[in-house]
Amino acid sequence: MMAPQNMIDWESSRSDALAALSAAFGEKFHRGAARREHFAHDESWHRSGLPDAVFTPRDRDDVQKLVQIANQYPIPLIAFGVGSSLEGHVVPVHGGVSIDFSEMNALVHVHPGDFQAVVQPGLTRKELNEALRHTGLMFTVDPGANATLGGMAATRASGTTTVRYGAMPENIVALEAVMANGQIIRTGQRARKSSAGYDLTRLLIGSEGTLGLITELTLRLHPIPDRVVAAVVSFPSIAAAVSAVGAILATAVPIARIELLDGLAIEAVNAFAKTHHVVAPTLFLEFHGSHGSVDGDATFVQAMCEDAGGRDFVWHSDLEKRNALWEARHMAARAIIAMRPGSRILSTDVCVPLTALPEAIDRAQHHIQSLELYAPLVGHVGDGNFHFVVPVGDDADETQRILDFTARLADDAIALGGTCTGEHGIGLGKQHYLAQELGGAVDIMRLIKQGLDPLGILNPGKILLNEDETFHTAPKLA
Amino acid sequence: MMAPQNMIDWESSRSDALAALSAAFGEKFHRGAARREHFAHDESWHRSGLPDAVFTPRDRDDVQKLVQIANQYPIPLIAFGVGSSLEGHVVPVHGGVSIDFSEMNALVHVHPGDFQAVVQPGLTRKELNEALRHTGLMFTVDPGANATLGGMAATRASGTTTVRYGAMPENIVALEAVMANGQIIRTGQRARKSSAGYDLTRLLIGSEGTLGLITELTLRLHPIPDRVVAAVVSFPSIAAAVSAVGAILATAVPIARIELLDGLAIEAVNAFAKTHHVVAPTLFLEFHGSHGSVDGDATFVQAMCEDAGGRDFVWHSDLEKRNALWEARHMAARAIIAMRPGSRILSTDVCVPLTALPEAIDRAQHHIQSLELYAPLVGHVGDGNFHFVVPVGDDADETQRILDFTARLADDAIALGGTCTGEHGIGLGKQHYLAQELGGAVDIMRLIKQGLDPLGILNPGKILLNEDETFHTAPKLA
Repeated sequence: MMAPQNMIDWESSRSDALAALSAAFGEKFHRGAARREHFAHDESWHRSGLPDAVFTPRDRDDVQKLVQIANQYPIPLIAFGVGSSLEGHVVPVHGGVSIDFSEMNALVHVHPGDFQAVVQPGLTRKELNEALRHTGLMFTVDPGANATLGGMAATRASGTTTVRYGAMPENIVALEAVMANGQIIRTGQRARKSSAGYDLTRLLIGSEGTLGLITELTLRLHPIPDRVVAAVVSFPSIAAAVSAVGAILATAVPIARIELLDGLAIEAVNAFAKTHHVVAPTLFLEFHGSHGSVDGDATFVQAMCEDAGGRDFVWHSDLEKRNALWEARHMAARAIIAMRPGSRILSTDVCVPLTALPEAIDRAQHHIQSLELYAPLVGHVGDGNFHFVVPVGDDADETQRILDFTARLADDAIALGGTCTGEHGIGLGKQHYLAQELGGAVDIMRLIKQGLDPLGILNPGKILLNEDETFHTAPKLA
Repeated sequence: MMAPQNMIDWESSRSDALAALSAAFGEKFHRGAARREHFAHDESWHRSGLPDAVFTPRDRDDVQKLVQIANQYPIPLIAFGVGSSLEGHVVPVHGGVSIDFSEMNALVHVHPGDFQAVVQPGLTRKELNEALRHTGLMFTVDPGANATLGGMAATRASGTTTVRYGAMPENIVALEAVMANGQIIRTGQRARKSSAGYDLTRLLIGSEGTLGLITELTLRLHPIPDRVVAAVVSFPSIAAAVSAVGAILATAVPIARIELLDGLAIEAVNAFAKTHHVVAPTLFLEFHGSHGSVDGDATFVQAMCEDAGGRDFVWHSDLEKRNALWEARHMAARAIIAMRPGSRILSTDVCVPLTALPEAIDRAQHHIQSLELYAPLVGHVGDGNFHFVVPVGDDADETQRILDFTARLADDAIALGGTCTGEHGIGLGKQHYLAQELGGAVDIMRLIKQGLDPLGILNPGKILLNEDETFHTAPKLA
């Protein structure tokens, strides 16, 4: 057994490493303070940590050379997309080199007949869909932020369409990565499925830059449906809305999106956009299919919603009217933050079995009341995943109550058979809960990390908790 | 770096290990020759290899104790379901203990509202679906054989419904496993998705018993559709059939099955069942959905098939008539083997990107002609996966030509961007092709194996090729 990775002494090698990297890479290697500051944090409330330098690779060979030199000294390497992660994944807690993938952002190839696109990790999902528009194909995973595809793979992202099209694991065919030992590997070819050895594709998805650096992704695309119908329906209670969701999922209707906003979230939208939506728990639905099938599906689902107490079911197929219907969902986070000017967002992320959803939300509402918090709900309820979007301000006492709330949420989710993170990942913020949730499985993760990255150069301090690193979860404000 | 696992000397510890296990387990531990013979081979053409003993665990604690003792000596452990694997996965090439999971075959729990079932690894997929019938839910992965669910997970199985519902990775929520170091782990809780750390669920799926022993599976279920329509349509050529498949997949029609039989396969069925199907490439289709949508989908697809040259499109929703339509597909393998009485089946398993399918099949037909083989085609063409079902007889020269054929198929598939195995796995039979297909990624697999199973006790000689083990691919007959 080698020494625990938290015992690594990064200090003694730091200046030699930086000198070697600077000599090797010249203008691709940046030491300036302003540039470094941009890579010190993500969009979350977690603490910052300045990198010693920023490296902007142009291709996989640059990445490989970086890893080879980093192993010689060693020095930490932290992959960075656009910094939209929500659990501090990109924070350089031990300094080191942030890898800026912004110049590796090509759409390498589209294989329309194979329903695949090959992209570099710095391309964002919206850039991809823009470029695909003429092909009749789309990339479906939609986490809200316009994240890079490399980042979405690294955090195992999902989003509003996961109930129909799956999360990142279902939408990545293969990866190219530079592993911690400097090897460039391809985890698979382009067949839609394969049983060829260990599933390194899925091992890298969600590994948060700690096992390898993704340099190319082969993505699965889906046909843009012939017909799309959007619908909105409000309910007397969250429990009624969730019971409608259960009924819908128990049919074979291929529904593409099932999102829930609670009354508080609707209220925030009304205040923000001067709209007059009924202030009640509201489901936002979307149906994808053929002209022959979608309207039938929508009518069928309308009846199910009304059986569960749903009112004012409205649906449209016209693009503009669909967008208008969904507007409240799309602007919810902005509207909530606007209720507390100057605040930053903490988004909780538990995910539970569908039948545990009412209980989990009930308990959460109870905690919110007793902790006296403002916390509107936005949920991918078709997956059992829901977020409380909590504005974090300068009040240290309130911040502590918010942290208590996230801890209670995780406790409840785990007790109800769920996970502390449905789609945001572990990063710095969920390390304690990972151990609580998966117990000894974390030891196996550690064996894998030690086997593949014995020097611990890739994103040290993330996912796997080390004894001396509990300070990482302290918020920026504390 | 530790010694390569092929250098392990199993002989010196074998008799001590067997004595210790016999003392520990009593009647659950079997040394009798007849019992051992049953575990010496799978359904494939690969060589046999007798285990030294057979162990029949009753629960996960038995499995853990077995692994703990096996690590002390060491001795190989080989998981065995029903032996329906097709690449020699369960053959004890170094002797050791075969683990007979037949008494760990409980349906532990059904969570109907969560669309999940918890099962032990020895339960078969048909037993599960039989038990689920009253719930309105089904487990969709259908590899043909009535395999155990543990075996299907271990080989990353898929089948006829994968085009709609996914393969095993999309249908397993979490696993419980005894890892090679003796730890019992749970890879996840019961949420439908999670971003909590490394994806150990997917790492174990397809690991062929070499990283851990699966002791419980939490499976994803799907609602039995309100309405099912089956259809059959024949084409003037395989290329025409495949072009219809491309057109169908380019729409958002949620088609549940798209299977292809070539003329030879249809001919075998006609001879076997005294039927009079048109001898031509034939697509077998199935549509799942609501009453409002499925018939529209089928009509839409009929038009697409006819545009591609399809003739005699027949469809039915009645269960008996559906079964009659699909009968030819279901009996194909038996019918083909009956063309060569006394033979055993070798099933090829390459999978290519959809646009490469016509070229891959063309090249294969060319090889079949030049090697003078009898090899009907059965394909999950919606996934790009196709099998030539080749009867293997006693003719050594013919057997060699069959092996040449499988090598050329793998070469072609890899050159066309595909995989040597879409759903059967590597086992003993595809080890050379794995390296050819994935190159340096195999080194990373080896690091994982060494990190998790340093003594190499779990199913040694599978997936990862060792220098002295090329004899494994020799067929039983050679």
